[in-house]
Amino acid sequence: MANSRYEYVKQYEQDATLLPGCFIVVRVDGKGFTKFSELHGFEKPNDKRALDLMDRCACEVLREFSDVRMGYGVSDEYSFVLAPSTALYGRRTSKIVSVLTSFFTASYVRWWGEHMGADAPLRATPAFDGRAVCYPNAATLRDYLSWRQADCHINNQYNTPYWCLVKSGATPSEAQRTLAGSDAGFKNELLFSRFGINYNELPEQFRKGSVVVRARERFVAKVREDGTAVERERGRVAVLHADIIGDAFWTERPETLAP
Amino acid sequence: MANSRYEYVKQYEQDATLLPGCFIVVRVDGKGFTKFSELHGFEKPNDKRALDLMDRCACEVLREFSDVRMGYGVSDEYSFVLAPSTALYGRRTSKIVSVLTSFFTASYVRWWGEHMGADAPLRATPAFDGRAVCYPNAATLRDYLSWRQADCHINNQYNTPYWCLVKSGATPSEAQRTLAGSDAGFKNELLFSRFGINYNELPEQFRKGSVVVRARERFVAKVREDGTAVERERGRVAVLHADIIGDAFWTERPETLAP
Amino acid sequence: MANSRYEYVKQYEQDATLLPGCFIVVRVDGKGFTKFSELHGFEKPNDKRALDLMDRCACEVLREFSDVRMGYGVSDEYSFVLAPSTALYGRRTSKIVSVLTSFFTASYVRWWGEHMGADAPLRATPAFDGRAVCYPNAATLRDYLSWRQADCHINNQYNTPYWCLVKSGATPSEAQRTLAGSDAGFKNELLFSRFGINYNELPEQFRKGSVVVRARERFVAKVREDGTAVERERGRVAVLHADIIGDAFWTERPETLAP
Amino acid sequence: MANSRYEYVKQYEQDATLLPGCFIVVRVDGKGFTKFSELHGFEKPNDKRALDLMDRCACEVLREFSDVRMGYGVSDEYSFVLAPSTALYGRRTSKIVSVLTSFFTASYVRWWGEHMGADAPLRATPAFDGRAVCYPNAATLRDYLSWRQADCHINNQYNTPYWCLVKSGATPSEAQRTLAGSDAGFKNELLFSRFGINYNELPEQFRKGSVVVRARERFVAKVREDGTAVERERGRVAVLHADIIGDAFWTERPETLAP
Repeated sequence: MANSRYEYVKQYEQDATLLPGCFIVVRVDGKGFTKFSELHGFEKPNDKRALDLMDRCACEVLREFSDVRMGYGVSDEYSFVLAPSTALYGRRTSKIVSVLTSFFTASYVRWWGEHMGADAPLRATPAFDGRAVCYPNAATLRDYLSWRQADCHINNQYNTPYWCLVKSGATPSEAQRTLAGSDAGFKNELLFSRFGINYNELPEQFRKGSVVVRARERFVAKVREDGTAVERERGRVAVLHADIIGDAFWTERPETLAP
Repeated sequence: MANSRYEYVKQYEQDATLLPGCFIVVRVDGKGFTKFSELHGFEKPNDKRALDLMDRCACEVLREFSDVRMGYGVSDEYSFVLAPSTALYGRRTSKIVSVLTSFFTASYVRWWGEHMGADAPLRATPAFDGRAVCYPNAATLRDYLSWRQADCHINNQYNTPYWCLVKSGATPSEAQRTLAGSDAGFKNELLFSRFGINYNELPEQFRKGSVVVRARERFVAKVREDGTAVERERGRVAVLHADIIGDAFWTERPETLAP
Repeated sequence: MANSRYEYVKQYEQDATLLPGCFIVVRVDGKGFTKFSELHGFEKPNDKRALDLMDRCACEVLREFSDVRMGYGVSDEYSFVLAPSTALYGRRTSKIVSVLTSFFTASYVRWWGEHMGADAPLRATPAFDGRAVCYPNAATLRDYLSWRQADCHINNQYNTPYWCLVKSGATPSEAQRTLAGSDAGFKNELLFSRFGINYNELPEQFRKGSVVVRARERFVAKVREDGTAVERERGRVAVLHADIIGDAFWTERPETLAP
Repeated sequence: MANSRYEYVKQYEQDATLLPGCFIVVRVDGKGFTKFSELHGFEKPNDKRALDLMDRCACEVLREFSDVRMGYGVSDEYSFVLAPSTALYGRRTSKIVSVLTSFFTASYVRWWGEHMGADAPLRATPAFDGRAVCYPNAATLRDYLSWRQADCHINNQYNTPYWCLVKSGATPSEAQRTLAGSDAGFKNELLFSRFGINYNELPEQFRKGSVVVRARERFVAKVREDGTAVERERGRVAVLHADIIGDAFWTERPETLAP
């Protein structure tokens, strides 16, 4: 059976590529996670186990794909930054998006039990969508990441009092009305006066999201006969809950924004 | 914290779409599965458990996405056919590719244990790549699927004697030399004379791959007071190992190629 | 001076292609032609010289590019239909769009004097934009062309009484008010009662636009010694002002819609 | 006649856009100009009239499109640089490419007579192809332009002795053999010893190509009653034949590379 007769169909494959010289951001985002999180009884507004699972998956991504420089995650989404110089899969859009999203998803299911615990078995099949976006320089890349972290902050500042109100007996629409149009000061005051919560003392993971980076760490590689230590440096994937809108984070990690 | 300052970065998102009026094929393909299958001791050249797991994931895809008309799978790849009229995710390429690939992957990990058995725990994170291709009419779509099934046939006809030779003591290069340039008749004769295997009696799943379809079936919805049955029809996802190169399969299922 | 050092920039060229197996329509459209037509004193609502010039350019396009099967023009736009099987410029979008638009434009300037006459010298540089669209089958291609011809009809039915009113002293806004929301019957009646014009007797070029086709014509290639004629067939580019919404046009020219 | 029935075909239009924040280069390139230049008796290897015509068209482009920052031309091609911040036509690829190419082409035909003279009437319809490429930063943009100017230099250094040899009686293949693999020194020596030509004294337009820029110039806007002049600055499109590979050109015109 000759296959050549049908092979012409390969011509229909149009492999779009991502512009060289640009940072590539791949963002994965939970599909229908409102329903998925309810089905599995996620704590509202933040479920530490579920966030840790997301962070774990992001760490796995950085360990698997050396061209991924960092990740930033909040709620059920994670953004991964690839180097402008990356030649991963010839910069083909579908390949990069699908493989990263697939690997992230597989990790999510694989490590579910370890993070969610025995009382929360997986009862539905999770899925993530993925997309790739090019940012031509460090300034726009940082603005992208600032956008996601600002979004994390805005959402959390709203969701925290919202769920306090609902848990204390308000209906969803009552809670919405109470918070509608209010500023951060009002929300923080409400949290403190009615629920005894100091917003700024909430875990940084909730307020700032998660940053996954390749940390350089020194370690004792061996000890010489004379008892002195031979130190070496190695890369290690680490999760931070740091501010990435200001300059400090970037000043300490210039390699993240290198060409 | 106003987020509007950073929101301009959304302009960098370029959402390519798939041409309307065309069949869309999404093909997922195992990433590095040669190594993955060795690590998990897959039977060579075909591991029925692993193929059943692939088929199971494809069934899950058809149950989850009503716009997927059928699937065709062989080895570690599966192709899914979407209707020309589908408006799924506004026909955005990345969204369709990533969500289907992600859902397929999650199913693969979720149902691994059920199909692979207790003696083959998951020891690495599987991943699939995905791509979407448009075919403007039924003829090119059928040629695409014929291409995949012909590929299945060609590969299996080679791999079956190859692994017989290797398992009986030949080195990989000796097995390759034995088979190099030979036709189907030679390979079948070798299989039969040396290994007692009649190629045409091997399981159809190995020789033809798997077709996942929505079968229509009649069932007794209720029984009337007078004892007569009320029959209704329902769709049910079914796995076949049928020839899809010839016309018969399509003549029986005209709705699969409808606009 | 070695050039290799800079040649890497070629990687930045991303050549998008048009899906194989689809009809390609390239539509060119005058840029800023309201102003351009005023500057050159085009007769309103239809300037026969200018329309003839457009038709002439379309004929030149068909003569130059054998893969262009037909053209349809109205006002300052023209659509060209390329065969689904065309391999012109490897189906690269920018190449096809730019070359056809450029050649059309060059023809427009080159043949301006011949059609517009000595009293209308070119006083500004005309430009056209161009785009390419894929239509996966004959039905959608015909609907595209019907869309353009219906547009021609609707615009002309409005513009004819509008300009009659304006030429007879109405202000633009008065003319608009008179016609606002009126149906074809009202407009035709107004044309006839106030201006003595029978809409259906207006030139078909105005009412139906222009179709440029490759007509087959028989001609006497030579005369034999016995006085009988040897007839041959040849293709000739011809301009029609025919209805292309109904079936008749297509039934007579099946090759236009061939794969 | 309701048009709505056909309007769905607009969905088939897929408007690709050029990534924001990047320099856009639109390059137009003569189609079949080897034949076109022979037909019109262009002087070999450089026809000053034809090059001046190209430069004229480029000037027209800069005057018409304020978002075009500069142009660089050599032989029958011209590259135009658009600002990273340009919002021209919503950065739609086909629109930008087609309109610029069309306008350039129209200018070429329109001003042909003025530059080519009465003894070289236009005898064929010229056409240009066009393409747009994104460069994410000033460094890659400069490398692109250096690539074109290095190409100009390499081609001219070869073509000059080649045509001297051919004009003095060598066949094309003899001339090719003489020059094959030779370095710049050999070619310059051959030019000088056999034809009395000092390569470095050839016109810069031939050796460096043409750069079209917006020059700032001061002019006397009016004279005050006391006799003193009021000076103002204005932009003026100018043609240079300057080196654009080195830094000097860019240091003097920082606005050209601004974001």
